[in-house]
Amino acid sequence: MATLPPLAHRVGSYRPSKVREVFAQANAPGMISLAGGAPFLGDLPFGELATQASSILTEQGAVALQYSFGVGLPRLRQQIADVMALEGMDVDPDDVIVTAGSQLALEAICKVMVDPGDVVITEGPCYAGGLSAVMSYDTDVRHAETDDDGLVIDKLAAQIDELIARGKTVKMVYAIPTFQNPGNTVLPPERRQALVQLCSDRGILLIEDNAYGLLGFDGETVRAMKADAPEQVAYLGSFSKMFGPGLRLGWIVPPRELVGVLKDTVETFILNPPTMGQLQMSAYLDGYDWQGLLERMRALYERRCDTLIAALRGSMPASVTWQRPRGSFYLWVKLPEGLDSEDLMVKAMARGVVFVPGTAFYIDGQGHDRMRLSYCLPTEEQLTKAGTILGELITEELAR
Amino acid sequence: MATLPPLAHRVGSYRPSKVREVFAQANAPGMISLAGGAPFLGDLPFGELATQASSILTEQGAVALQYSFGVGLPRLRQQIADVMALEGMDVDPDDVIVTAGSQLALEAICKVMVDPGDVVITEGPCYAGGLSAVMSYDTDVRHAETDDDGLVIDKLAAQIDELIARGKTVKMVYAIPTFQNPGNTVLPPERRQALVQLCSDRGILLIEDNAYGLLGFDGETVRAMKADAPEQVAYLGSFSKMFGPGLRLGWIVPPRELVGVLKDTVETFILNPPTMGQLQMSAYLDGYDWQGLLERMRALYERRCDTLIAALRGSMPASVTWQRPRGSFYLWVKLPEGLDSEDLMVKAMARGVVFVPGTAFYIDGQGHDRMRLSYCLPTEEQLTKAGTILGELITEELAR
Repeated sequence: MATLPPLAHRVGSYRPSKVREVFAQANAPGMISLAGGAPFLGDLPFGELATQASSILTEQGAVALQYSFGVGLPRLRQQIADVMALEGMDVDPDDVIVTAGSQLALEAICKVMVDPGDVVITEGPCYAGGLSAVMSYDTDVRHAETDDDGLVIDKLAAQIDELIARGKTVKMVYAIPTFQNPGNTVLPPERRQALVQLCSDRGILLIEDNAYGLLGFDGETVRAMKADAPEQVAYLGSFSKMFGPGLRLGWIVPPRELVGVLKDTVETFILNPPTMGQLQMSAYLDGYDWQGLLERMRALYERRCDTLIAALRGSMPASVTWQRPRGSFYLWVKLPEGLDSEDLMVKAMARGVVFVPGTAFYIDGQGHDRMRLSYCLPTEEQLTKAGTILGELITEELAR
Repeated sequence: MATLPPLAHRVGSYRPSKVREVFAQANAPGMISLAGGAPFLGDLPFGELATQASSILTEQGAVALQYSFGVGLPRLRQQIADVMALEGMDVDPDDVIVTAGSQLALEAICKVMVDPGDVVITEGPCYAGGLSAVMSYDTDVRHAETDDDGLVIDKLAAQIDELIARGKTVKMVYAIPTFQNPGNTVLPPERRQALVQLCSDRGILLIEDNAYGLLGFDGETVRAMKADAPEQVAYLGSFSKMFGPGLRLGWIVPPRELVGVLKDTVETFILNPPTMGQLQMSAYLDGYDWQGLLERMRALYERRCDTLIAALRGSMPASVTWQRPRGSFYLWVKLPEGLDSEDLMVKAMARGVVFVPGTAFYIDGQGHDRMRLSYCLPTEEQLTKAGTILGELITEELAR
């Protein structure tokens, strides 16, 4: 007879993933999925990638399949610093810690920083995977208010001060300032400065998650908060959206004070990031015009975004609103009173369209009036069809 | 001015890695390293691996570089179940959770099971990476006594009962029953049974880490504890030693009761294990006679082991002893009184040989009388030279 001990207390703070439930259905045959955050990979240079992978294995296979540096390969760390320079950051490659996806980078930061009961503030709404990570350490997670430009800093300041006055320890603010997921807002420069100042004044670590920063439709990049406050900001980067997620490669550049303890933490997690994948990523960045491809990807995503919006415009009641994205993958749709996004999702799936209801991005029951529609992966034809189906559905629902 | 909050309390339980310090020196030019646990990869079929990787990227690149199932690819989970069948286990592929290395599997189990102050018992000595993982959750880690056959179960029972009597919560026993690292002991069947029974009686999760099980010199496999107690044992597997660690792929098969919460935990860590690497691993297992290669590897490791032993025999005083390994990578050498392994390591490095002092495998100051010598990676020529250098050094040291 097997007998197991009780689970750790922190498991009680785990978050049942609504997104995961949605995804389980998203791949049903014939279903058009506006649910995922998966980038379009069809234009990647698979022939060249195949040649590169083949060369790596024939020329240095015993290196590629072996253990390697816990912090990542030196060449890739330099390349990451070069990528970050595009958004205004001057980073010492020695401060770059490569991880098996930036999700694990966020885990590492939580493990290092958060005691049970500590407050972590996230945007409301917040990337569901980020919420899962920060909640999983018995954390007291709070949402901060956002508007069409993202975090509202004076309200955040008041919220933090009230928490501190009540004896709470506010450890971190987790933010996606550029092309926020799911709100797709871009935090303006003056708010970035104010946010950094606020965190510095209150002794709070500011986590800047920037998976989408290079995906602005106009090709312009926004100066990262890390650029002006390297010692206040733990920066999370990812190759998942600007290349593809299948190699599982992300990175952290923390304040220098935290580099040592985060190196140890990541090494204890995975010993080292995948060696083969790092060499593949490195070869791609060195051997291919990846910035040229990214430019074509930005144009594609913008076309897809506009296609979805056109379909929604043509079929939605005017009471359904959104802000046109300036980049990235997501349309964050506001529903009029009387509609519920979870209910709508079930009905939309019966008509062959799946999306993520807004409730997946909050921990406090908000989001019933929001849907996140991803336009990154479906074709324009699918987007037109899906947008029209959603518009018809919502029109019918409102008429009832 | 940057101001950061204090670190989480658990960081105080992190373990400074002596092994890491050693490894930093191990790659110095001309140094013969007996320090690592890196497998010999020179005989891998790099041409075929290159062809496979190339085919994956040209034929299904948009799958290989995309997100995939959080638990791992279905085909690979089936193949893992097939590998486990070689050691007597009848595993449902649905219970297999693929991870980015089995180190992350151990992390996931700790995160799910261990509250601050909970006791985790490990073998003394214990794999240094395993110690780092279990210690990193504010755990009360205790070593259990071992002899030439591994864990001494009646002593372990008394130790557990004493801890329980003192009000401690003993959550897990972490063990490497087959080719233990670093002791290279093989736990006999009757002790395995007794260990399972003990854990079942006391409500303790038994972690069976089995990275080396297929590396017995005689090619015979030992029946895993998991085979007879699937609901008491969380089994950790790895492709790192039987193939190579560069893809970072390991797995957990927990008691079924823990599958759900561990899936969630691993997904929160990494979203999904590397898709490309999983396809590569899967193609290798399907398309190559990997068991034939493993047979050649076992013979190679045995030759290297015997070469190192011969060099030690020829140069060491008789007061230096060891048990001849029956498989795997490590010789666990016992030093006579008056010698200190950390001191010896420094002196050995000055002569061009590096190894891991026994103290790296204990948390309580034991191990000054032990050295772990790895014979897996150096050539026979290097092993003869390194063994002779160590023998001469120790002879001189004892004569002083």
